[in-house]
Amino acid sequence: MAIKLYDLAGAEEDRRFSPNCWRTRMALAHKGLAVETIPWRFVEKAAIAASGQGAVPVIVDEDKTVFDSWTIANYLEDRYPDRPSLFGGAAGRALARFVNNWTHAVVYPGLFRMIVKDIWDHVDAKDRDYFRQSREQRLGTTLERTVADRDAKIVAFRASLQPLRITLEAQPFLGGAASNYADYSVFGGFQWARCISPFKILGDGDPVAAWRQRLLDAFDGLAGKSKGYTC
Amino acid sequence: MAIKLYDLAGAEEDRRFSPNCWRTRMALAHKGLAVETIPWRFVEKAAIAASGQGAVPVIVDEDKTVFDSWTIANYLEDRYPDRPSLFGGAAGRALARFVNNWTHAVVYPGLFRMIVKDIWDHVDAKDRDYFRQSREQRLGTTLERTVADRDAKIVAFRASLQPLRITLEAQPFLGGAASNYADYSVFGGFQWARCISPFKILGDGDPVAAWRQRLLDAFDGLAGKSKGYTC
Repeated sequence: MAIKLYDLAGAEEDRRFSPNCWRTRMALAHKGLAVETIPWRFVEKAAIAASGQGAVPVIVDEDKTVFDSWTIANYLEDRYPDRPSLFGGAAGRALARFVNNWTHAVVYPGLFRMIVKDIWDHVDAKDRDYFRQSREQRLGTTLERTVADRDAKIVAFRASLQPLRITLEAQPFLGGAASNYADYSVFGGFQWARCISPFKILGDGDPVAAWRQRLLDAFDGLAGKSKGYTC
Repeated sequence: MAIKLYDLAGAEEDRRFSPNCWRTRMALAHKGLAVETIPWRFVEKAAIAASGQGAVPVIVDEDKTVFDSWTIANYLEDRYPDRPSLFGGAAGRALARFVNNWTHAVVYPGLFRMIVKDIWDHVDAKDRDYFRQSREQRLGTTLERTVADRDAKIVAFRASLQPLRITLEAQPFLGGAASNYADYSVFGGFQWARCISPFKILGDGDPVAAWRQRLLDAFDGLAGKSKGYTC
């Protein structure tokens, strides 16, 4: 039976733009596990109440309900140990946590402040008030004012990717010769931007852009064929 | 036969303050390999000319001369595979490179701009002109002006450690339950500061400080017993 994934969708049901859901999509594909995605909107808290919280990704694997992208990755690794490893052992898992946290501390906040207005433009009608109110409260200003100087913000954002960039100058993936969950953890952020925003995040010739393309192409183009913008 | 390590020393021969040499010291201890350190000063380029470049660490292991801390770690892992692993497998090695690069892109530059004047205060007399000139050229200003606002810089520096901090809230070491080269890679930076500067780098109660203490205590207090400041 396919694993069910509650997957954030926009006004168009096939615009799936959650960075954390993309981590889970890529992890499921890496494991070769069938998935049935269930489009979900921010205000549909009742649909995932069984998880005990209100955010996606949430997966249902037979009788198990699991939430939080990091917890889901660990669940899949431990539940399906005979399938391709997401972490490559204990040390790989421990360091993937650092990469995951770097994404949360650096990549997500940097992207958020450039694309948050684009997100609002694409969310479902019933999510628009919720999204604007919750995000403007978090930001302490309007969505429009947040992104107004994104042509300046992009310079600092690209500089903040330097640890990723110099690593990818030496090896094709964070995981080494092949991608693993550390890659998907960071890639989720770029896929979030691609699905929702026409704003150009990476410069031409950036090794990070070449890596992103490899992941867009992975698993028969799972991420690259999804609805989004050319990047 | 003990491996020889050319190890940066200050005016006092037992003040060993190179962050990259500390990475190598910790890696050698992790592998349980005997080391004979050779105190070295910045201007002694001739002593390490056999390495084909002018910076330490340089190790001499029987007939092999190896330089660059990352290259040395990889050399030790491959040359001594039956000793405790520095990386915990291919995925761990690939992700350790990311951590190593994060240290170079974030931790080292952040520390450098706060402690560079303290370094100059401690280098050997014959290194003082070389150090000041080369570093002021790199900085585009004087050592004194660089560190003048370090009470402000420390706030941003501590914030930049957030990926490390939230990882260490979940596990005792970057490597997981035990330390590995990813830990030593970052720790080298903190040991650099400790050896050379009385400036307080980490706040009390910071999980990063508790992790640093575990590494100062490791290998019978190798790093913690070395000449430096209370931190």
